[in-house]
Amino acid sequence: MFIRELNRGKCKTYLLGCDRTHRAALIDPLKENTGRYIAVAAYHGFRLDYIFDTHTHADHRSGSWDVAEMAEAKVVMERHAPAPHVSMHVTNGDELEVGLLRLKIFSTPGHTPDGMAICVDGHVFTGDALLIGGTGRTDFTGGDPGQQYDAVTTKLFSLPDDTVVLPAHDYRGNQSSTVGKEKITNARIAGRSRDEYIRIMNNLGLPFPTRFRRRCRPTNRPSKTTR
Amino acid sequence: MFIRELNRGKCKTYLLGCDRTHRAALIDPLKENTGRYIAVAAYHGFRLDYIFDTHTHADHRSGSWDVAEMAEAKVVMERHAPAPHVSMHVTNGDELEVGLLRLKIFSTPGHTPDGMAICVDGHVFTGDALLIGGTGRTDFTGGDPGQQYDAVTTKLFSLPDDTVVLPAHDYRGNQSSTVGKEKITNARIAGRSRDEYIRIMNNLGLPFPTRFRRRCRPTNRPSKTTR
Repeated sequence: MFIRELNRGKCKTYLLGCDRTHRAALIDPLKENTGRYIAVAAYHGFRLDYIFDTHTHADHRSGSWDVAEMAEAKVVMERHAPAPHVSMHVTNGDELEVGLLRLKIFSTPGHTPDGMAICVDGHVFTGDALLIGGTGRTDFTGGDPGQQYDAVTTKLFSLPDDTVVLPAHDYRGNQSSTVGKEKITNARIAGRSRDEYIRIMNNLGLPFPTRFRRRCRPTNRPSKTTR
Repeated sequence: MFIRELNRGKCKTYLLGCDRTHRAALIDPLKENTGRYIAVAAYHGFRLDYIFDTHTHADHRSGSWDVAEMAEAKVVMERHAPAPHVSMHVTNGDELEVGLLRLKIFSTPGHTPDGMAICVDGHVFTGDALLIGGTGRTDFTGGDPGQQYDAVTTKLFSLPDDTVVLPAHDYRGNQSSTVGKEKITNARIAGRSRDEYIRIMNNLGLPFPTRFRRRCRPTNRPSKTTR
């Protein structure tokens, strides 16, 4: 199995490939790096079957639609995603194949209603539900700290402790964690009751992202010029 | 036949490929997206034989010279193009092969003296001569509305009605049109006499593009660092 993060920054985009069949998927591409993703896929000889957005992003514009068009792949989002240009909607428990890899979908609402995590062969791409040492904020429209608590504690924390956690963001230079480590050390959620977690999340008082309104449009909605 | 627009914006760059031989051409590349074009070509296994500039561009810097150098392709422009680094000049009626595809050239002066359109297998890349619902402005140096009228009405409009029109620009979100549709609905030229068209084009009163002077240099002139 091939996994590589391609942005080298705070927003993380993963190329996930099956070494034996050279089929691959791209997870959470940024609009400004689409050429890079296709270049890296081509360099390693991968063909992209699926482009995933793990949720509707508020902090960057998605490159899913552009990459899907240029690379002949399908855009996949969770069934609550409002994006009109999604090729395939998935929901909790669904499975998808990428070559010989078997991807299992977990619906993880809370940060947004359309959050999902993707689990494959001892690794889980957690989107903005579970971050390293934290969780995604729940104060945007449609956010729900109770739902997020349930998704993280009953779904993601039920995975084996050595499952590698690969989040959609990290602001402190971390690259990965494990489910076992997050269950014990995650400052936001480890050891908290549901009520306690909701109280914390409702009182974070975080500033809104720059240009929030523009970026919060449905992720895969192409710009006017490409419709 | 493979056709894909690669900028996803107002300026359009097309990758045109022969599926059977994996030979390809690139039409109107922008200087800022050269890596993306080569990535997409590599991803699909295409080798670039030709890079076309359909005319000397006033609104963006051409990436033709850069892509040609990096991808070992030839830069092709119409015979009136002043650019000193064109590998091959073509003129009305010329034909070029890209794998099993046969490209026919139409000289289409009017927007610039070196305008050309490229017709291949039921599709025509019209550059800035014929746009969707419009035509390219004719008020730059060397522009000529009468010549443009003749090129559009006697050459492009003589193609079969179902020929797909793929322009170099679109500012309203359109992706393609057909010759038949433009003959009837094109607001600038459909149903107009030559004199009427010249009068309209000479009185559009459009502002000049930002940084016009810098961008209007010969398209394929390399930067100082590559001379």
